[in-house]
Amino acid sequence: MALIVQKYGGTSVGSPERIRQVAQRIAKWSRAGHQLVVVVSAMSGETNRLIALAKELQKEPDPRELDVIAATGEQVTIGLVAMALKAIGVDARSYTGAQVRVRTDSAFTKARILSIDEQNIRRDLDAGRVVVVAGFQGQDEEGNITTLGRGGSDTSAVALAAALKADECLIYTDVDGVYTTDPRIVAEARRLRTITFEEMLEMASLGSKVLQIRSVEFAGKYRVRLRVLSSMTDALLPLAEEADSGTLITFEEDTKMEQAVISGIAFSRDEAKITLTRVPDRPGIAFQILGQVADANIDVDMIIQNTSVEGTTDFSFTVHRNEYAKAMDVLNSKVKASVGAAQIVGDPKICKVSVVGIGMRSHVGIASLMFKTLSEEGINIQMISTSEIKISVVVDDKYMELAVRALHRAFGLDHAVA
Amino acid sequence: MALIVQKYGGTSVGSPERIRQVAQRIAKWSRAGHQLVVVVSAMSGETNRLIALAKELQKEPDPRELDVIAATGEQVTIGLVAMALKAIGVDARSYTGAQVRVRTDSAFTKARILSIDEQNIRRDLDAGRVVVVAGFQGQDEEGNITTLGRGGSDTSAVALAAALKADECLIYTDVDGVYTTDPRIVAEARRLRTITFEEMLEMASLGSKVLQIRSVEFAGKYRVRLRVLSSMTDALLPLAEEADSGTLITFEEDTKMEQAVISGIAFSRDEAKITLTRVPDRPGIAFQILGQVADANIDVDMIIQNTSVEGTTDFSFTVHRNEYAKAMDVLNSKVKASVGAAQIVGDPKICKVSVVGIGMRSHVGIASLMFKTLSEEGINIQMISTSEIKISVVVDDKYMELAVRALHRAFGLDHAVA
Repeated sequence: MALIVQKYGGTSVGSPERIRQVAQRIAKWSRAGHQLVVVVSAMSGETNRLIALAKELQKEPDPRELDVIAATGEQVTIGLVAMALKAIGVDARSYTGAQVRVRTDSAFTKARILSIDEQNIRRDLDAGRVVVVAGFQGQDEEGNITTLGRGGSDTSAVALAAALKADECLIYTDVDGVYTTDPRIVAEARRLRTITFEEMLEMASLGSKVLQIRSVEFAGKYRVRLRVLSSMTDALLPLAEEADSGTLITFEEDTKMEQAVISGIAFSRDEAKITLTRVPDRPGIAFQILGQVADANIDVDMIIQNTSVEGTTDFSFTVHRNEYAKAMDVLNSKVKASVGAAQIVGDPKICKVSVVGIGMRSHVGIASLMFKTLSEEGINIQMISTSEIKISVVVDDKYMELAVRALHRAFGLDHAVA
Repeated sequence: MALIVQKYGGTSVGSPERIRQVAQRIAKWSRAGHQLVVVVSAMSGETNRLIALAKELQKEPDPRELDVIAATGEQVTIGLVAMALKAIGVDARSYTGAQVRVRTDSAFTKARILSIDEQNIRRDLDAGRVVVVAGFQGQDEEGNITTLGRGGSDTSAVALAAALKADECLIYTDVDGVYTTDPRIVAEARRLRTITFEEMLEMASLGSKVLQIRSVEFAGKYRVRLRVLSSMTDALLPLAEEADSGTLITFEEDTKMEQAVISGIAFSRDEAKITLTRVPDRPGIAFQILGQVADANIDVDMIIQNTSVEGTTDFSFTVHRNEYAKAMDVLNSKVKASVGAAQIVGDPKICKVSVVGIGMRSHVGIASLMFKTLSEEGINIQMISTSEIKISVVVDDKYMELAVRALHRAFGLDHAVA
């Protein structure tokens, strides 16, 4: 008997019919003798509907009140899932984030989980009940309702798995695992049976939308065994088969010696780049620039500053394309004059393409193969950024598919064994 | 400066546009220097939508889970109203029932309020904020979400007014007050400027749908000054005019000496009657019958048992028409044989018509005028029941409008001064 946390996203619970299928799947695990904690999202479309309603009343919705409203989406789903389980004879009980004391900080709409009180859950599990918990939400120290931001239900599931020391956390989604790259771009993309936590972190942060990045960080920190698998398979698939499907996120020491050099090609087309030219090269400049951007609640992704020439340097960074205009506005109005930049130039039509692999650490030549491949396709590299296990380049967004396909082939992912 | 509790029902907050009007109204009171606590219902149609969704998953929805789902309706509204207030520069903060610790018993879907912790509310009021509270909901001792049943938001408002010792509780609704009878039935029906608490209790329990009966009981118990008024008037009506509109529910000692004998004619067409004939007249029989009915969660309204003849008696009662079939079933399967009734006969096509008035206590002849009036219209009286301030009769439901109009005229309500 294992203690399993399962998470079902918005599409998986998008209609009464889908919820009934989810209940069948849960029942299969429960009847096999496992203890089940199920984390669910709002029914697909519901969160957007609620946010749109909020925006009708206040153009920039008050974050505290927006969370009060948004949290209702998951609250409806937990009740429906618990009912669907009871309807087929599986005892179940639902809890909101507040009811299982998912304590978060007070950063409304993007709160972080601090702790979970698993007492109620344990009592129900011991009583033989399936426990259904609302993902995406918690409450702060003062009892205010908070939400974790888009995709936050993944984080809720992993945090619950950590708090309960669950044997495994299964993230059911509309894809059947993590791929070497997006199959919609590269037909030869293959599912990885395993991926290391570090690689997954790079893949998630680089735009592979399978898992929310914070949930992966959480899994790494608390060593939660995490599996991504499909909720689209037959709910009555034999349990052993389902339990071995999808992609398991492992820890480095668990992986086989012959780890492939590169696990996958990640990409994101939602990027925009901004450069401040001829910024004086003196201490505090980076903070002067990015402090204002952060104050405007704009997330920054890549940051690049090269060695200075003649006392000035060019400072570049990328932001989400949706925040490009806002970022340019902040820089022009609040930063340009005070830091003494010559110009602020930007381009919202770029994309980021990355090769990711834990094997990269011990192999030379990855970067040169990447740059050679792009060069052969006539793709100009605009920015480069690297970490221990990934190399990212920024290129014109019209080349994205071409770059991804060429790299997938060049690194042998089209044919490699997963 | 007064402390005012205002309650807005589902129609009043039925759309973003209506919510903006509610915000304007609240702002008017707030800017005049009053402290405001606002209780809101779910947007009209929302509770029905949620219940229908629940029923798709479980034919007889689990009551605990149904409350989890239903409570989201009000939670959305509080956020929207708070935002609408902030959008026009009025500081506001929303609270769910659980957040202001509306403690109830654990009777899911029809819970009763036990206490309210007004600490958070006072703190916000002192800080100059309008406090927006979700009606209809609370939590039990174990932290489970509960709801108060249909119309429960009225009770929430009155309970909050009692806990806060508010100066007045204003129930905004889609009618402009309490009438001598339903204006849709009797064109001459007039609005009462005041009505006593006892009369209102009889009017509410007899089918006048202006206020939920429990809210009136609560108001009586805690001596909450209660006013029913229209949310359909111009939100920017001068405050003094609005404050004096609608119908004020007073306490007996406040009322003028020359109280009209009869305040109004109440009626309900949702009734069904059931009679057990030739039941042995011995102790415990009433309990044997109604105990089973209560166990089946069926509410009983009128109960009539006449003197016995030859050791047996006929025992009659009325139930809501929707529960008629269920009640007949319970009686036939569980009661008939054990109490030794000769027959169980019922009629789901009846209605109840009542004359209500605190002046009735000191006036003879009310009953005879009522019976004479009905007789002149050729309406047969099937059952009679009386209290200190009302007389109710059960008649064939096809005569309802006729009976109401005739009584309204006979008791001088067509022309009397309110």
